[in-house]
Amino acid sequence: MQRSSSRSIDDESLFVPPSKCRCEKCPLHHISKPVQSERDRIFSNKQSVLKAIENSIDDVTSDLEQLVMFQSVSVEPSMLLESCKAIEWISSRLAELKFKTYEYPIPDNPANCFVDPHQKVVFAKYFSSPTKKTLLIYGHLDVLPVKADCWLSDPFRLVVKDNMFYGRGVTSGKGMLVGWLQAIECWLKIHGDLPLNIKFIVDMLHEVGSTGLQDYITSRSEFFLDVDYMVFDVNSWLNNAQPVVACSLAGWAYFGIEVRGANKNLESGLASGLVFEPMVDLCHFMNNLVNAEHEIQIPGIESNVKRLTTPEWHLLESAEFRTYEYREDLFVRRLRYEDNKVELLQNRWCKPTLSMHGVEGADVHPGCRQILPMKVMGKFSIKLVPDQELSQVIDSVKDFLLSLKAEQNVNTLLNVHLLDGIDPCSWAQDSKLMKVVCRALESVYESEPITTSAIPICLPIANVLQKLINKPVILMPYSRRTDKHHNENERIESLSVMRHAKACSTLFVELSSLRSKCKCNIIQQYCNLRGVQEILDAGRISVDKNEGANRWKFLNKLRNAESDSPKSKSRNSFKKFLSSTFGCAKKPKKRSTKSK
Amino acid sequence: MQRSSSRSIDDESLFVPPSKCRCEKCPLHHISKPVQSERDRIFSNKQSVLKAIENSIDDVTSDLEQLVMFQSVSVEPSMLLESCKAIEWISSRLAELKFKTYEYPIPDNPANCFVDPHQKVVFAKYFSSPTKKTLLIYGHLDVLPVKADCWLSDPFRLVVKDNMFYGRGVTSGKGMLVGWLQAIECWLKIHGDLPLNIKFIVDMLHEVGSTGLQDYITSRSEFFLDVDYMVFDVNSWLNNAQPVVACSLAGWAYFGIEVRGANKNLESGLASGLVFEPMVDLCHFMNNLVNAEHEIQIPGIESNVKRLTTPEWHLLESAEFRTYEYREDLFVRRLRYEDNKVELLQNRWCKPTLSMHGVEGADVHPGCRQILPMKVMGKFSIKLVPDQELSQVIDSVKDFLLSLKAEQNVNTLLNVHLLDGIDPCSWAQDSKLMKVVCRALESVYESEPITTSAIPICLPIANVLQKLINKPVILMPYSRRTDKHHNENERIESLSVMRHAKACSTLFVELSSLRSKCKCNIIQQYCNLRGVQEILDAGRISVDKNEGANRWKFLNKLRNAESDSPKSKSRNSFKKFLSSTFGCAKKPKKRSTKSK
Repeated sequence: MQRSSSRSIDDESLFVPPSKCRCEKCPLHHISKPVQSERDRIFSNKQSVLKAIENSIDDVTSDLEQLVMFQSVSVEPSMLLESCKAIEWISSRLAELKFKTYEYPIPDNPANCFVDPHQKVVFAKYFSSPTKKTLLIYGHLDVLPVKADCWLSDPFRLVVKDNMFYGRGVTSGKGMLVGWLQAIECWLKIHGDLPLNIKFIVDMLHEVGSTGLQDYITSRSEFFLDVDYMVFDVNSWLNNAQPVVACSLAGWAYFGIEVRGANKNLESGLASGLVFEPMVDLCHFMNNLVNAEHEIQIPGIESNVKRLTTPEWHLLESAEFRTYEYREDLFVRRLRYEDNKVELLQNRWCKPTLSMHGVEGADVHPGCRQILPMKVMGKFSIKLVPDQELSQVIDSVKDFLLSLKAEQNVNTLLNVHLLDGIDPCSWAQDSKLMKVVCRALESVYESEPITTSAIPICLPIANVLQKLINKPVILMPYSRRTDKHHNENERIESLSVMRHAKACSTLFVELSSLRSKCKCNIIQQYCNLRGVQEILDAGRISVDKNEGANRWKFLNKLRNAESDSPKSKSRNSFKKFLSSTFGCAKKPKKRSTKSK
Repeated sequence: MQRSSSRSIDDESLFVPPSKCRCEKCPLHHISKPVQSERDRIFSNKQSVLKAIENSIDDVTSDLEQLVMFQSVSVEPSMLLESCKAIEWISSRLAELKFKTYEYPIPDNPANCFVDPHQKVVFAKYFSSPTKKTLLIYGHLDVLPVKADCWLSDPFRLVVKDNMFYGRGVTSGKGMLVGWLQAIECWLKIHGDLPLNIKFIVDMLHEVGSTGLQDYITSRSEFFLDVDYMVFDVNSWLNNAQPVVACSLAGWAYFGIEVRGANKNLESGLASGLVFEPMVDLCHFMNNLVNAEHEIQIPGIESNVKRLTTPEWHLLESAEFRTYEYREDLFVRRLRYEDNKVELLQNRWCKPTLSMHGVEGADVHPGCRQILPMKVMGKFSIKLVPDQELSQVIDSVKDFLLSLKAEQNVNTLLNVHLLDGIDPCSWAQDSKLMKVVCRALESVYESEPITTSAIPICLPIANVLQKLINKPVILMPYSRRTDKHHNENERIESLSVMRHAKACSTLFVELSSLRSKCKCNIIQQYCNLRGVQEILDAGRISVDKNEGANRWKFLNKLRNAESDSPKSKSRNSFKKFLSSTFGCAKKPKKRSTKSK
């Protein structure tokens, strides 16, 4: 297992030109095997791999058993050590699977500044060939807290009963990751290689919003340069019959309403009755954002919301949904619109919603301090859905609040801040990629998947990665409606887990069929390919004995060429170049942040 | 200087019967001097004491200089050490003045739990005779923070210029205390004794609400058993012509509106749009408490408010008041009712006002956590004025909020808590005590003081002490309107400080004239007098050489008597007995929490 260190980051970026390449047009002419035959070999092995997965239920159970045992409850900082252990486990597991792994400590967020150990993230990569597509898989190992007395078994002990897995995390991060691990293991066992290059990010603070990670990945953008697709597992099944492939991500706009009075806090004994209090005006502003039914009252906010198509409407109608389960899940006595299922689900998933989070700057300590806070910031967020635009929402909110201030002749100062926000995004449901994903799912689930972009998935980390990498996103449907997701006595059918592993493995094959032109040309020219694993290749391809000598000859030639070329001086353009689309992703019309 | 320790508390409660008494009816018959002659002696020395004070401006300046140098800014926990030094200074100063002093560390409030040194309080007492009244003086040594760049001189360096003292604290705690110290010093110098028994409490967290002290004094109630009057210095002058003797204290009711949804916090990604959010409903409740003009909308809340009498109305009209100074003082751009002086002042002082302090339980950290808090508590307080009743206000608030909930069909759970509260109180303006106070002030300020009970003083610690000790309160007017109270470049006329010292000294004389029957009878019988200072007496009264022997003879006799008496077994009733009114305070009709 490799440990994180600043050195490993440096090592990673050392120049190692690919020693061999199998693409037909490669200028290196190191082709030792035609691409077509490799492609055929992958397809011919597919069935054996699926067979192997089918027979590997014991391995799956064993992996899941070990993962469930980590009490990685991320909302409790005291459990951070457990999460770190889980991260170490996955890191060594991936290393076993021939991945090169890196564990990075993530700069602390203020909430955890006194906590040791620190939050970590695992980056891992498997590089097999520059002619193959690179898939980025996001996984997480942390779980929601448990109410141990509501469980029939120990939540951190995997129980297998009646073809069900019981345990905390089986329907979320832990179960999802096990599927990928198994698919990879079986491919390596049967085929000796993977059909794709694969990169992993494994998070341990997903359930608390991946604080820190979002900033961190932005600073490590070079890791994602060669990524072609990103995959996230989501619980998007709406009924038990058909898997749902969501083709959109919800966005959000997080606002702060800053209301300011004096430039210092006052004592209420001194100033009460004399001054206009910011808290009072803030309550007024906040209250006017929604009506008594909690519906947004900001004009123009819903104007761009994508309408449901008839199939999507039917999908919501067919959704497996029991009000009491939702109520139980959310611990509330009554839900909004609970008399109409479609309206309820539409409001939950397909419409923008406003939530209020708190007030910053006011007195928040238990007890009775007679302080008049003189600068308060009310915080609320609006969930954005396709095809809303962040900029338009910001304008609407600001206009509304300012007109409210003018109307009521408010005497305190108002400032509206956008504290955080990201556009929602959606992509075409009929792109080649989505067809390929659906084909993979259909072959496993034996039922045609439904694609929808009007029911966006809420997964902030996906938005962040999508914005950073700017490559297509795949949202893999995981646990079904019959599985009890995130609940007490969380459970999943063992069949669901096995099918997920199969779907992962089939997805590898299907994505590999999208292979287009080799990247080695670009990579060679820019002398900056990272992660070539000659050792891996060594096992598969007959090595040219003279290669070593040839390689260095070439290298010198390249260096000479470089020093002649003016391009060599602008190595920064490498990043720009590599991050531009090519291959399948060359055709940006296939996905856009707005569909018609 | 005596240091605090648990031993000193024990020492204090040791039984030491008074060795001599000068009252005429005393069963001990240890009278060495008739009471009348002592009284005459006090009155005859009054003028010399006033003369001595007049000549002691250098001493006053020196005391004030030393006090101002302590940067005891209590809102900044890092300055706690400075406050502690100030406390030590006052403790040793009082010890010089023949006071027995105790410094007690006060159990921490949660906000300071990691702060060392801890908050302290000085208790000090000067006991001269059981026949004398006991006056409790409350003082504080902490100051408000300074904006050093707004000051023309160093705020923590006393500057004397044009008969003005400049420096932080001269118009509040520090200046006030210096007056008392000087009055005491001059009495001791001229007369060798004080006309009263005096007790001190000196606080160091007054400006942050005396957190901790309020609870602490309740636990040390025995210290106050023999207190007859309490005096607090207040800045109650409304114009520069007449001192104002306020005869009422404002009360307060501090409420928490608890709104509860689910029994755990939810992620907005998961639950937004599905559940009714407590924060939204809380904003609704809070917003309805007041209108756009910030006027209280709770029906019935103002029904009992004492009307201004014509003289009080004229007093407000005559008040020295400049809007811009208030605005500058409070750092706001506009004041409520700023177009009408009397309405503004009435709203500030004479009417109940509602202030909002914050929201507990919601997200208060900087940043954008997408949490839906599922239990929030909005905190607001209402300042109560005579003759409002706390119980009635509580009922009105609860009724109002519950009817609002019913009206709007709110789906979250509502609970209204009274977190803290105390009744306002007022007392007769024409009682013997108030007359005596006015007489003392008139002789010093050469202008008849105005008494008012419709303009209450906001001084929480006074309410707490008044409730605990249940003895009359005297509110001594301190700095005048021309002094810049609490502002930047805080200043006070040196004349004001000297006059205050004189007023203090005259108050001693006037209060001593209220002397009624001797307490030694009770004290002797209950064998629990604490704090007799024979050493002090020794200097003044010719000592009976055989006294020592006599005293122990008496002591044994008393002990024998005790063991016979059934009363001796119920020593607890001592407290009860002593805390009941006697002497002047025996006539409760002279002060009541409600005047007609």
